[in-house]
Amino acid sequence: MSGLARMVSDHQANGAAPSQPTPPIRYELLTLGDELLLGLTPNGHLTFIGAQLGRHGALLQRNVTITDEAVAIAEQFRESWARADVVITTGGLGPTCDDRTREAVAAVLGQKLVFEPTIEKAISERFAAFGRKMTQNNLKQAYVFERGEVLPNANGTAPGLWVEQDGKVLVMLPGPPNELQPMFTDQVIPRLAARGLLHAGESYVQLRTAGVGESMLETRLQPIFDRFGEALSVAFCAHTGAVDCRVSSPDGRLDHAQLEAIAGECAALLGEDFVCYGHDSLARVCGDLLRRQERKLAVAETATGGLLANAFTEAGGACKFFAGGVVCYSNDAKMALLDCPECLLEQHGAASEECAVAMATGAAETLGADFALAVTGFAGAAKGVGGNPVGTIFIGLFSPGGVWAKKLSYPGPRATVKVRAVNAALDWLRRELLRLESGATTTVRRSNVMR
Amino acid sequence: MSGLARMVSDHQANGAAPSQPTPPIRYELLTLGDELLLGLTPNGHLTFIGAQLGRHGALLQRNVTITDEAVAIAEQFRESWARADVVITTGGLGPTCDDRTREAVAAVLGQKLVFEPTIEKAISERFAAFGRKMTQNNLKQAYVFERGEVLPNANGTAPGLWVEQDGKVLVMLPGPPNELQPMFTDQVIPRLAARGLLHAGESYVQLRTAGVGESMLETRLQPIFDRFGEALSVAFCAHTGAVDCRVSSPDGRLDHAQLEAIAGECAALLGEDFVCYGHDSLARVCGDLLRRQERKLAVAETATGGLLANAFTEAGGACKFFAGGVVCYSNDAKMALLDCPECLLEQHGAASEECAVAMATGAAETLGADFALAVTGFAGAAKGVGGNPVGTIFIGLFSPGGVWAKKLSYPGPRATVKVRAVNAALDWLRRELLRLESGATTTVRRSNVMR
Repeated sequence: MSGLARMVSDHQANGAAPSQPTPPIRYELLTLGDELLLGLTPNGHLTFIGAQLGRHGALLQRNVTITDEAVAIAEQFRESWARADVVITTGGLGPTCDDRTREAVAAVLGQKLVFEPTIEKAISERFAAFGRKMTQNNLKQAYVFERGEVLPNANGTAPGLWVEQDGKVLVMLPGPPNELQPMFTDQVIPRLAARGLLHAGESYVQLRTAGVGESMLETRLQPIFDRFGEALSVAFCAHTGAVDCRVSSPDGRLDHAQLEAIAGECAALLGEDFVCYGHDSLARVCGDLLRRQERKLAVAETATGGLLANAFTEAGGACKFFAGGVVCYSNDAKMALLDCPECLLEQHGAASEECAVAMATGAAETLGADFALAVTGFAGAAKGVGGNPVGTIFIGLFSPGGVWAKKLSYPGPRATVKVRAVNAALDWLRRELLRLESGATTTVRRSNVMR
Repeated sequence: MSGLARMVSDHQANGAAPSQPTPPIRYELLTLGDELLLGLTPNGHLTFIGAQLGRHGALLQRNVTITDEAVAIAEQFRESWARADVVITTGGLGPTCDDRTREAVAAVLGQKLVFEPTIEKAISERFAAFGRKMTQNNLKQAYVFERGEVLPNANGTAPGLWVEQDGKVLVMLPGPPNELQPMFTDQVIPRLAARGLLHAGESYVQLRTAGVGESMLETRLQPIFDRFGEALSVAFCAHTGAVDCRVSSPDGRLDHAQLEAIAGECAALLGEDFVCYGHDSLARVCGDLLRRQERKLAVAETATGGLLANAFTEAGGACKFFAGGVVCYSNDAKMALLDCPECLLEQHGAASEECAVAMATGAAETLGADFALAVTGFAGAAKGVGGNPVGTIFIGLFSPGGVWAKKLSYPGPRATVKVRAVNAALDWLRRELLRLESGATTTVRRSNVMR
C-alpha cells in the first residue's frame, strides 16, 4: 500500500508544519442513475458525501453523474481511477438487471467477482425477518471482489464494497440514503482516517451566526483572524438568514484546541449574533433554550403556511416545549382560533404589525404558552395590498417581557420569502430567550432588530 | 453548421420511422462551484436542466461538478467539448475574482473575449434602477466571445453566452436559479429546438397516479401498452405516495395526439387512481377540486407538524379554499383548539383512530369548513405507545358525507414518514372530492382504501 503513503495528517501529530507541502488527496465521486440525469431525484449523495469529506478535511475534487449503462460506467470508472486517489461510487449495487456496476468496475480492475455465502445468508435472513421470500435475483448482491472487503449493510440487502489496489482506494456504496449514510459515517470515514486519507475528527470549527451579513461578519472578525496569519483558513457560507463561518488550519500549525479557542473568541465578540457551534438549526437552538428555561411556545402563521410550526417538529422532543400552532388563512380563522378582534382586522388588515401582535397574543393565550411567534404578510404571487408589495412580512413576538411586531421585506420567489420569514422569526425569539436568560430587563426594541 | 445536421426531430414531420437510426444527441452539463462539492448547496441545476431536457426528448448523458479553479475548468471543458454535441455550463460568470470560467473556456475554444458596450449599459442601468453604484469588477460581465451570441439576463447582471463552433453548441448560464431558469426555458430550449437538437414541444405525456404501486400499475396498464409494441416507450417513476407513468415514442412513429389518446385510455382504466396529467401536486389537484365545488377545507395535525397545511399554501390562491389549520402537539391544544373531549384522549390516546376523527371534526367545526383532514401518530424518534410502533399514522377525514379514520404504517426516517402521511391524507381527500363530484352516494370505507 505504498501509494497510500501520502498522509494528510501525519504532520499534525507534532503540530509542526510539514517540510514539504503534500499534494491533496484526490477524491472523486461517481453517482450512477438515470433518475439523477432526468431530474427526477436530487443528487443528495453529492451533498451528503461532499459535506462529510469536508468535515474531515478532505475536498471532493469532482463528481460525475452518468447513466446506468455498463459501457458508460466502465469508461468513466477507468478515467476516475486513473486520476484519483480515492473513488467513491453510489448506486447500481441492487438486485435488478440494470444494476451492472459491480461487473463493469471489476472488469476495469482486472478482478473476478466471487460468491460470498455469508452475504447470501444475511440477505435471506433479512427477508425472513420481514416475512418475505427472497427472489433469485437477490443473489447477485452476494458477489464481491476477489481481492476486496465487504462493508455490511445494517439497513438493506446490498453490502458496500471496499477495494485497495494500485495504491488507491475504491468504495462502492448502495444507493438508498438510509443505507448509504450510516455506512459512510460508521465504516468508511474511520477506514479512510485509519489510512491517513482524511482526519478522524472534525477538521474545522464552525460558528453559526444570524442577523449579520457575510461582509459585515468578516469585517468584525478580521482583527482576530489577522493575529494568526496564514496558519488560519477562514471560510464563510451564507444561508437564507444565517451565515456560517468555518475556521481551520490546512497545514496543521493550529491544533483543534487552538481552533476552538479562536472560535470562542469570535463567539464572544459577536455576542447575540452568535447562534451556536456546529450545524444546529435556529429552531433547535430555540427549542434547547425553551427546554432549559422550562417555557412553552405557540405559533400562529399565515404566509409561512405551517413551515414555522414544522421547524420545531423536525427534531424529536418538540412536545417538551411546543404547545402548538395555528395556520389561519382567513380572517374568520384568526377570529375563531386566535381571538383577533374583527375591528382590528378591518382597520389595519391581516397583513399589519397590529395583526401580528394580535395573532401572537392570541396564540399564547389560547395555547397557554409563555412565548408566541406570529407571521403574516405577502409571501407569494398574490399582489400586496395597501403599499405593501409581495415579500412584505410582519412578525409578532409575545414573551413574558411584552409583545412587539416588526415589518420586514424580502425579495425573491415565494419559497425563499417563506424560509427567510421563518428564520427571522426564529432569530428574534432566540435573542429574546437569551436576554431573559441573562437577566436583562430591557427587551428588544423594534428599531434595533429591523433589517 | 453541418455538424448540427443530426436532427432528432426531422423524421417526425411525416410520422415515418427514419431509414437509419440517428445516434442520440450527446448533452453534457458542467456545474461549477466549490459550494456544490462541499455539500453546502444541493445541485439544483442538474435537477432542473435534466428535467427540462427530458421533457423535450433529450437525455442528459453526463453531469460533471468541479471546483471553481481555472485549470480544472479548462481541462474538464476540453474533455466534454470533445465528447458531446451540446455542452451546458452553469455558474462562474459573475463579477468576483473566482469567476474565471469565461476565460478558461475561451482559451479552449481558441476565441478572444471582446468588450460589449451594450451589456455594460444594461448592467449600469440595472444598478441605477436599484439605486446602487456599479463597482468596477462588474465590467467583467460585459466580455463576450468574439464569435458567439448573448442571452440577455432579465433577472441579474451576468448575461448567458451561446457559441456554435466545431459543429457543436456551447451554452453558458449564470448560477443563480432565478436567473438561470427563465433563461433556459425562454431562450435556450427554443434555440436548441430550432436547430433540431431537441423537440420544441413535450416529448412525452405523463400520467400521475396515487394509491397503486409501480409493479401493480404496470400490470394493469400493460394490455394497453402491448398494442403498440416497440413504437411506444413507457417509463415509471415512484415518488413517496405517487407513481408517474410517462409514455413517449422515441422513434417518432406515434405523434403527440396519439400519445395523448393512449394516456387517456390509461386514465380511464385507472379511474380514481389517476390523479392528473403532468406534474401538479396532490395538494394542487385537491385545491382545484375544492375551488370548483366551492368548498372549504381545514386541517389538524400533530405528527406532520405543519407540512399538511403548508402543502396547500405552496401554490397561490389557497385563500380561496383553505380555511386554516391547527398544529396541536399537546392534548391541551387539541382540547382548546379542536374541542377534542378529554375523556376520549384519556381512553384512546392522542394517536388513535378515535382522536383522528375528533380532530377532523373539531377542525371543520372550529374553522367553518366543509372538509377537514387530520393526521396524528408517531412519525419519528420517540417510541410508539400501546403496540403502535414508530411510523404508525392515523388519518381522519371529515366530509359532508361523514367522518372516518384509518390507520397506516410507514417504515423509514421521520422526514419520509411525514411526507407519506401528508400524501396519504391528500389522496384520501382527493378521492372523496371526486366521488362527491360524480354524485356517488357511497363514500369511501376504511377497508378498501387501507394500504
